Amino acid sequence: MNTAWWAQPAAALDRNAARTAHARQQTLTKPPGSLGRLEALVEHLAGCQGVACPKLDTVWISVFAADHGVAEEGVSAFPQVVTGEMVRNFASGGAAISVLARTLGATLDVVNLGTVNDPGEIDGVLRAIIAPSTANFCRSPAMTHAQCEDALRIGAERVARARAAGADLFIGGEMGIANTTAATALACALLDESPGVLAGAGTGLDDAGIARKVAVIERALQLHAGAVDPFDRLRCLGGFEIAALAGACIAAAQARMPVLVDGFIVTAAALAAVRMNPGVRDWLLFSHRSRERGHARLLDALGAEPLLDLGMRLGEGSGAAVAVPLLRSACALHAGMATFAQAGVSEKSSSGSASTADAGAVIA
Amino acid sequence: MNTAWWAQPAAALDRNAARTAHARQQTLTKPPGSLGRLEALVEHLAGCQGVACPKLDTVWISVFAADHGVAEEGVSAFPQVVTGEMVRNFASGGAAISVLARTLGATLDVVNLGTVNDPGEIDGVLRAIIAPSTANFCRSPAMTHAQCEDALRIGAERVARARAAGADLFIGGEMGIANTTAATALACALLDESPGVLAGAGTGLDDAGIARKVAVIERALQLHAGAVDPFDRLRCLGGFEIAALAGACIAAAQARMPVLVDGFIVTAAALAAVRMNPGVRDWLLFSHRSRERGHARLLDALGAEPLLDLGMRLGEGSGAAVAVPLLRSACALHAGMATFAQAGVSEKSSSGSASTADAGAVIA
Repeated sequence: MNTAWWAQPAAALDRNAARTAHARQQTLTKPPGSLGRLEALVEHLAGCQGVACPKLDTVWISVFAADHGVAEEGVSAFPQVVTGEMVRNFASGGAAISVLARTLGATLDVVNLGTVNDPGEIDGVLRAIIAPSTANFCRSPAMTHAQCEDALRIGAERVARARAAGADLFIGGEMGIANTTAATALACALLDESPGVLAGAGTGLDDAGIARKVAVIERALQLHAGAVDPFDRLRCLGGFEIAALAGACIAAAQARMPVLVDGFIVTAAALAAVRMNPGVRDWLLFSHRSRERGHARLLDALGAEPLLDLGMRLGEGSGAAVAVPLLRSACALHAGMATFAQAGVSEKSSSGSASTADAGAVIA
Repeated sequence: MNTAWWAQPAAALDRNAARTAHARQQTLTKPPGSLGRLEALVEHLAGCQGVACPKLDTVWISVFAADHGVAEEGVSAFPQVVTGEMVRNFASGGAAISVLARTLGATLDVVNLGTVNDPGEIDGVLRAIIAPSTANFCRSPAMTHAQCEDALRIGAERVARARAAGADLFIGGEMGIANTTAATALACALLDESPGVLAGAGTGLDDAGIARKVAVIERALQLHAGAVDPFDRLRCLGGFEIAALAGACIAAAQARMPVLVDGFIVTAAALAAVRMNPGVRDWLLFSHRSRERGHARLLDALGAEPLLDLGMRLGEGSGAAVAVPLLRSACALHAGMATFAQAGVSEKSSSGSASTADAGAVIA
């Protein structure tokens, strides 16, 4: 049997480009290091893009929508019809991610992987229906092998489209009633953690709702305890959109495309991707820490320190979209600031603590 | 004697507009509260602007540059000539704040309040010279009464200009070799805290440099122990740019102009402003937590939770400028998202944990 496409090695970051970017940072008219994490960010992007001055003009956002069989266990604060309704809202421009994509001048690519309340053909929505929903993973695996492979492949295809469109950055988003339950179940399996620790309020469960969600996930973990391979865990406990996001992360890393990771669900998918193919980690940037309970634990497992911590918990890729201007600012500063030599500005004295008598440090 | 202008009351926030904005947030197609701090942010801005849908199209950035007599004590990693050199760099577009202002489409207003290395007349720089530098506050008050009043007034005048230009938001920035020493001294006096707790590396002091800075501030605090009124503390321990920033905060609050506060030095100025006129606090938004050691303590004293924590410590207003897109995103989402009714999206079930049987919650 051939090795699956998702096990093919991720690309290597261009360490030379990252070093050149680092060297440039030291020459710009500011105290060295004073732009904080914006400096490391631009060096990482330089390594991804293989250039000394990376850019983020073109941002691609794919939002994957799908329904979940486990919704029938009553684990969401919203009815399942909302998934299909929101697909229409994405396309008509009224959803949070629609507004943010417009603000960023980003492409918004909406992918319907299967919704129980099927909105049908909609302008601006790709129909890539795998099934109306996954199976209820309390009773059987969420996906068949073929379904999970389909979802992974569709995610990869969106990255290929982003690349063909000249995107500098890929953002994956998601919509699917009950998908924090699926993401939490997957996270518990990947991290060997209990649902009581990771399960949160999702779209707004009360305490009784969270307790029901925990019990549902416990049943699922017992049923699928035999699934130990990352692909199998994703297949048994994930969802179409979660598998598509994992496929997108892997394909992006193989295609030298940096990914800005959104919140809890996308991070669970990213962790599955990294377990399936560890080289993927180098291509992931992390946008925000969600208020969803298990997110911090997932970020820790990935050694990730996100840029923002604003208590967001909306999904759709919205946290990543909100963080894009930080990356753009980092790139603009890196490319646009004058060097000490260009501006005729004196550098730091060698002693690290100068008096005005140290004017010998003047360059120009 | 008349009451000083800076003691005139700050404007009141428009609580009705804030409430209307809050009510609108509950109708948008997202789980209530899921935009986290972006929701509170837009409600605060609504209260400042007195409208249900605030906007941030027009941003005004005033950068105040000034030199400090205390630089002769060897408390900075950079030579004093840099202040004047950077004024030129601001105007010619090579400084961090110049790049960020361009990126934001913001007005960059550069004000030279007095530099030892005087760059002279420069296109795009307002000459508002108070003196070549403050006095060394280890020997005498940093400013005379007249100088401190001049600086406060100049700051207020920049807010008036911003207002006349139709600005939706005011950002103050600063440049001045040795000004973390002045800001730390002022903060110690205002907070009754010791320099050993608040003094940090500034532009990059080593441990010996920080120890010298602490000793210098201790001498200054002893000398000016008699200054207990906030104005007098500002006068004795501040700087021209710090007083201008304080004046700008006060004038902004009086003129219904929200201020996005930058890092350590601007926050010290903002605290002085709030001590001079407590109503100012309502008009301050906080952009970021600087890496400069004393900043967290200053933010705590103001009850402020900044939006970003990126390890920045550059000054110039750069941290505030980097945060502007977060405010703009908050405004865009608030104004641009569809309501549940408009989009025909079902709302959360009243029980807080729905099953699909709860489709009675569907609106459209």
